[in-house]
Amino acid sequence: MSQWRLSEDRCFSAEPNQRRVARQLYEAVRDLPIVSPHGHVPPELLGDPNARFGSPAELFIIPDHYVTRMLYSQGVPLEALGIPPRDGGAYETDHRKIWQTFAEHFHLFRGTPTGLWLTDEMINVFGVTEKLTGESAQRIYDHIEAKLAEPDFTPRALFKRFNVEVLCTTDAATDDLSYHKALQDEGWGHRVRPTFRPDAVVNLDTPGWHEHIRKLSEASGIDVTNYDRFIAALENRRAFFKQMGATATDHAAVTADTEPLSHAEASKIFDSALRGQIDARSAARFTAHMLHEMARMSSEDGLVMQLHVGSFRNHNRRLFERFGPDRGADIPVATEWTRALLPLLNSFGTHPNFRVIVFTLDESTYSRELAPLAGHYPAMLLGPPWWFFDSVKGMERYLDRVMETAGLYNTAGFNDATRAFPSIPARHDVWRRVTCNWLAGQVVTGLIDEEDAAGMAYEFAYGLAKRAYRLP
Amino acid sequence: MSQWRLSEDRCFSAEPNQRRVARQLYEAVRDLPIVSPHGHVPPELLGDPNARFGSPAELFIIPDHYVTRMLYSQGVPLEALGIPPRDGGAYETDHRKIWQTFAEHFHLFRGTPTGLWLTDEMINVFGVTEKLTGESAQRIYDHIEAKLAEPDFTPRALFKRFNVEVLCTTDAATDDLSYHKALQDEGWGHRVRPTFRPDAVVNLDTPGWHEHIRKLSEASGIDVTNYDRFIAALENRRAFFKQMGATATDHAAVTADTEPLSHAEASKIFDSALRGQIDARSAARFTAHMLHEMARMSSEDGLVMQLHVGSFRNHNRRLFERFGPDRGADIPVATEWTRALLPLLNSFGTHPNFRVIVFTLDESTYSRELAPLAGHYPAMLLGPPWWFFDSVKGMERYLDRVMETAGLYNTAGFNDATRAFPSIPARHDVWRRVTCNWLAGQVVTGLIDEEDAAGMAYEFAYGLAKRAYRLP
Amino acid sequence: MSQWRLSEDRCFSAEPNQRRVARQLYEAVRDLPIVSPHGHVPPELLGDPNARFGSPAELFIIPDHYVTRMLYSQGVPLEALGIPPRDGGAYETDHRKIWQTFAEHFHLFRGTPTGLWLTDEMINVFGVTEKLTGESAQRIYDHIEAKLAEPDFTPRALFKRFNVEVLCTTDAATDDLSYHKALQDEGWGHRVRPTFRPDAVVNLDTPGWHEHIRKLSEASGIDVTNYDRFIAALENRRAFFKQMGATATDHAAVTADTEPLSHAEASKIFDSALRGQIDARSAARFTAHMLHEMARMSSEDGLVMQLHVGSFRNHNRRLFERFGPDRGADIPVATEWTRALLPLLNSFGTHPNFRVIVFTLDESTYSRELAPLAGHYPAMLLGPPWWFFDSVKGMERYLDRVMETAGLYNTAGFNDATRAFPSIPARHDVWRRVTCNWLAGQVVTGLIDEEDAAGMAYEFAYGLAKRAYRLP
Repeated sequence: MSQWRLSEDRCFSAEPNQRRVARQLYEAVRDLPIVSPHGHVPPELLGDPNARFGSPAELFIIPDHYVTRMLYSQGVPLEALGIPPRDGGAYETDHRKIWQTFAEHFHLFRGTPTGLWLTDEMINVFGVTEKLTGESAQRIYDHIEAKLAEPDFTPRALFKRFNVEVLCTTDAATDDLSYHKALQDEGWGHRVRPTFRPDAVVNLDTPGWHEHIRKLSEASGIDVTNYDRFIAALENRRAFFKQMGATATDHAAVTADTEPLSHAEASKIFDSALRGQIDARSAARFTAHMLHEMARMSSEDGLVMQLHVGSFRNHNRRLFERFGPDRGADIPVATEWTRALLPLLNSFGTHPNFRVIVFTLDESTYSRELAPLAGHYPAMLLGPPWWFFDSVKGMERYLDRVMETAGLYNTAGFNDATRAFPSIPARHDVWRRVTCNWLAGQVVTGLIDEEDAAGMAYEFAYGLAKRAYRLP
Repeated sequence: MSQWRLSEDRCFSAEPNQRRVARQLYEAVRDLPIVSPHGHVPPELLGDPNARFGSPAELFIIPDHYVTRMLYSQGVPLEALGIPPRDGGAYETDHRKIWQTFAEHFHLFRGTPTGLWLTDEMINVFGVTEKLTGESAQRIYDHIEAKLAEPDFTPRALFKRFNVEVLCTTDAATDDLSYHKALQDEGWGHRVRPTFRPDAVVNLDTPGWHEHIRKLSEASGIDVTNYDRFIAALENRRAFFKQMGATATDHAAVTADTEPLSHAEASKIFDSALRGQIDARSAARFTAHMLHEMARMSSEDGLVMQLHVGSFRNHNRRLFERFGPDRGADIPVATEWTRALLPLLNSFGTHPNFRVIVFTLDESTYSRELAPLAGHYPAMLLGPPWWFFDSVKGMERYLDRVMETAGLYNTAGFNDATRAFPSIPARHDVWRRVTCNWLAGQVVTGLIDEEDAAGMAYEFAYGLAKRAYRLP
Repeated sequence: MSQWRLSEDRCFSAEPNQRRVARQLYEAVRDLPIVSPHGHVPPELLGDPNARFGSPAELFIIPDHYVTRMLYSQGVPLEALGIPPRDGGAYETDHRKIWQTFAEHFHLFRGTPTGLWLTDEMINVFGVTEKLTGESAQRIYDHIEAKLAEPDFTPRALFKRFNVEVLCTTDAATDDLSYHKALQDEGWGHRVRPTFRPDAVVNLDTPGWHEHIRKLSEASGIDVTNYDRFIAALENRRAFFKQMGATATDHAAVTADTEPLSHAEASKIFDSALRGQIDARSAARFTAHMLHEMARMSSEDGLVMQLHVGSFRNHNRRLFERFGPDRGADIPVATEWTRALLPLLNSFGTHPNFRVIVFTLDESTYSRELAPLAGHYPAMLLGPPWWFFDSVKGMERYLDRVMETAGLYNTAGFNDATRAFPSIPARHDVWRRVTCNWLAGQVVTGLIDEEDAAGMAYEFAYGLAKRAYRLP
């Protein structure tokens, strides 16, 4: 049986001078409260006091497409990982068997961020002491299962133990925010906040768009029968989200286009969509228009606009048909920002009330387009490394390519962006370690002094995110 | 006279902890047999027992466009390097003079992979002891010439000395594989295998296409008078290659497009080409179609499909007219993968019998498109850094950008891809050193443990390549 | 009061072996004369013996868009930094207040190249000893103001103190070069040279193009009434610049297109422009044509052609309308080189008299396109990291991605490209430090030996730039 250890100095340079400075910087920020301004934790997990995490397989494997895609890439069918086919076909329901399969493939995660987070969670959250292998799998399952039955391992107990100051969920524009309401009633409203995400109503070719529009009418009390009423309904929902504690909105798009349409054009396309007539090009133009329109609303209501661009969703069509979205088949595409954001930034980029935080999956744009843009426009900040790049090397590339041009203060700190609640401390810890180590590198090469580095480490870990998202 | 040395610790970090771990990992893999699953060594070199390497200039300079392009870029005409113009014009035939010119420009290779390979070969294969300069040039020529006359320096002798377990050549679809036949007859069939490369018949605008089609008819015994017979002839040749020991095919294209045509469209374009009527756009569409078709055949016969994308060939037209192809004027272009591979991967990406290994010259796609694709599709692996990126820094970038997202096990180990047989150990040695050093970096920063690192080092050096290419 | 220090070992690795080698290499090049073959220092600063730098705010802040953009990005209006609106609106004229604002925001420059240059200048050129903060601002202002009044701090005195061997300015094709004439008369002609930059007459959609053409007629004595006379006038001005000491030309373009037009097409577009009728597409085609034409002229007169590609100018339209160009709102765009340079390189890429030095803002093209092109064509060199990438990390990426493929000798040394004369030594010093440290990295990892590294360090610091620009 091999002992499972995680180095106290992980993510720090092996060079002794840099490591010493990194440790020192990290000591000062490691226990700062966690600010989690963007993520996908289900609100019911915290809103319902009786919510539990389920089995170890439900906690670590089944809902986590970072995990399942890696096993799938090596030939393990998703059915074997407990994922139900849409057609009602068979799938593994024995969670111990799912866990066994996972454990036998755990070597696939060597050197990956998922491997690091999982190891950190098992060791530091659940107290696992032996390395996960096919041989140790069932003992570790027993151990975690027992822990999950303890009162200290409910979602709310972990929320406190993790020292989360504030966590923002991501919610459909049509959501009634009932769990947020419950939280607000319990006095937790400042700790768990909603985020307004209108993609399903704004992107006219979303599957089930008419149904989403129906819900929007219902939720807003405004019958969405034309473009003007659509805009009014969105404004109504934004006001509701804001009243429920939201400080931000979130928007995903394949491209960064933000060219507005005339009112007549927008109305015409929207009317066509209502009649069920929509082509891909009109839908794309409408999405671009709506990003511009959402920026206009943000400049009025002060909600911070998040823009996540460049994911080609559901690349594997057969998998999508069989299992639905979010199965690890979303693949990045190259993104153009400079010309695409021109309309939005020329309209609102200097508006004192407007703020946009952008996220990319095209690392070649960090230094070429995004850092120069964020280093110029008062309204624009650059978000942290996203998705695949939320990793040790991904962060290092981000810091190396962004900081010299944008400057630290035009960036937005860290987002964990996760569905996997118990992985939150591990993810923030990697960021804190990597930024401290990067700053230590700057110190030992004489580029900044230790006093400045300490101030910057605090900003990376805590200050930037709070200010970027206008969290009180 | 300055002594020529090559550090025992080359490619390893100077940081003592990392270097120690790197050395240790490297010690365990340095002497593993060489698996060379893709390259351009002429089969006659090994198939003909009487084959010899020629003069030092023929061995190191004349056929190696990595070498000649660098001298050319600094104003040395190719004629001075012994390369015959197509028009029968004059060129240097005194190999000592060619060697002298090369030696006087050897400083151009400082810090380049070519410089490292040449140095390693001269020191470790040929026992050269003084640094190559204009002054030492002729003495070193004498020395190498004498070595080449020894029986220990024939191609086959070096094959054994290099401990090559298996080497795959790259052969035209129309090749009779006579040298592979001879090798098979001698019991060397498992050590030297052919690879099926049909580019010259598949790309309708290849110069001399009709002649290649004529040879295809001849080789297959199927008169290629229409598209269906073309497909049948290709299937026939694939079966022949497979019987001759091939486990893979190889395909080069400027773009990664894989959109299939209808049977009617494909037939129509093919018929036009037979009549000598082909435009660039139709040729490109046909190439895309044929990549899809080749994937279909691979899913049936199990030959591993290699896809090398993104080289704009023969950029310098005057040079091409004067000297022909492969003169160092092939320049990469940006490559789009996510949308381009969609048809192929949706048709065959989950087929249990299919495997595709992709190679890129656009490093920005490593983390953006290729690692996410390889980290999802069961049938896709990512090949090692190719061409210009088969270098110390090129490998480091590859490892940093690929491994976190794709995971080690979705990659294909190393290819040397070389024509220059005696450079093979030097090339594999760089890969083994760089991967061990990279793993050591992961160990000393606490991201993987030494046990895992040792397993991964073995995979990088040996295991991945064997499995990826289905080599027995 | 905190003491302001700049480490003697800045930019060097903390790893003791690498640092030792880096120091040693740097010691041998740190005091080499400065060759500054491309930049934007106003010629009057050196041509007029009475020229002075003005106030500390005029020296460090007001004209430097690297500085002002960063404060602007954090909400400081340009008016507060002493920049006059075009409409005659109010702006801060109290230079002490401007300085105070700058000092209070100096933390924004932590970890940026601007921060490093400013710190170096204040400490090493002006002898400032306390760290710049809001609290120390006015004392430091006093100190610098006093220094600037001393005879040792005139532009010419600093030119000598900085040990500048030669500095090339950048001058409109229509410039009378009167300051260069004055310098030539004083015997300084070999120390300050002009560079021919015809962008304003060559790009048909330049604001005020007709006025520039009028000036071209006047300066050349050739009445530019058609395309042929335009070409003749340009040839006339090139001859004049050459006679005034120029060794190079400079050209900026959004894309690298170099497709020539027929004489008839070029004439037709030019005639249209003269009549005030020009569309964006024709202007772009004419620019591409003129790059080809300028290469033709360079192959005849031997002036080295510089090509700066990929900046989308004046992205922030409102800011442009209010303050004019060069306010930090120029944002890079992705650049395609391989196909775009094909016409130019096929026409002149092997011409013995022609040389082109290219500069990019798209780092993804370093390894993909530019290093392979520079490593092949005799006429092409790759310029140093430009603009945002003239930074420690920017240089490291450049060296890592370029040197293995292009080789050192196909690059062009360093350019400071600056308007800010007193920052010149700081900028060259960063380059010398980073290249020496990079070479030291190659030495300690056994990739080059110390003898080669010393030769390469000299080339980086001095030799390459002199040869690249054909400076005597």
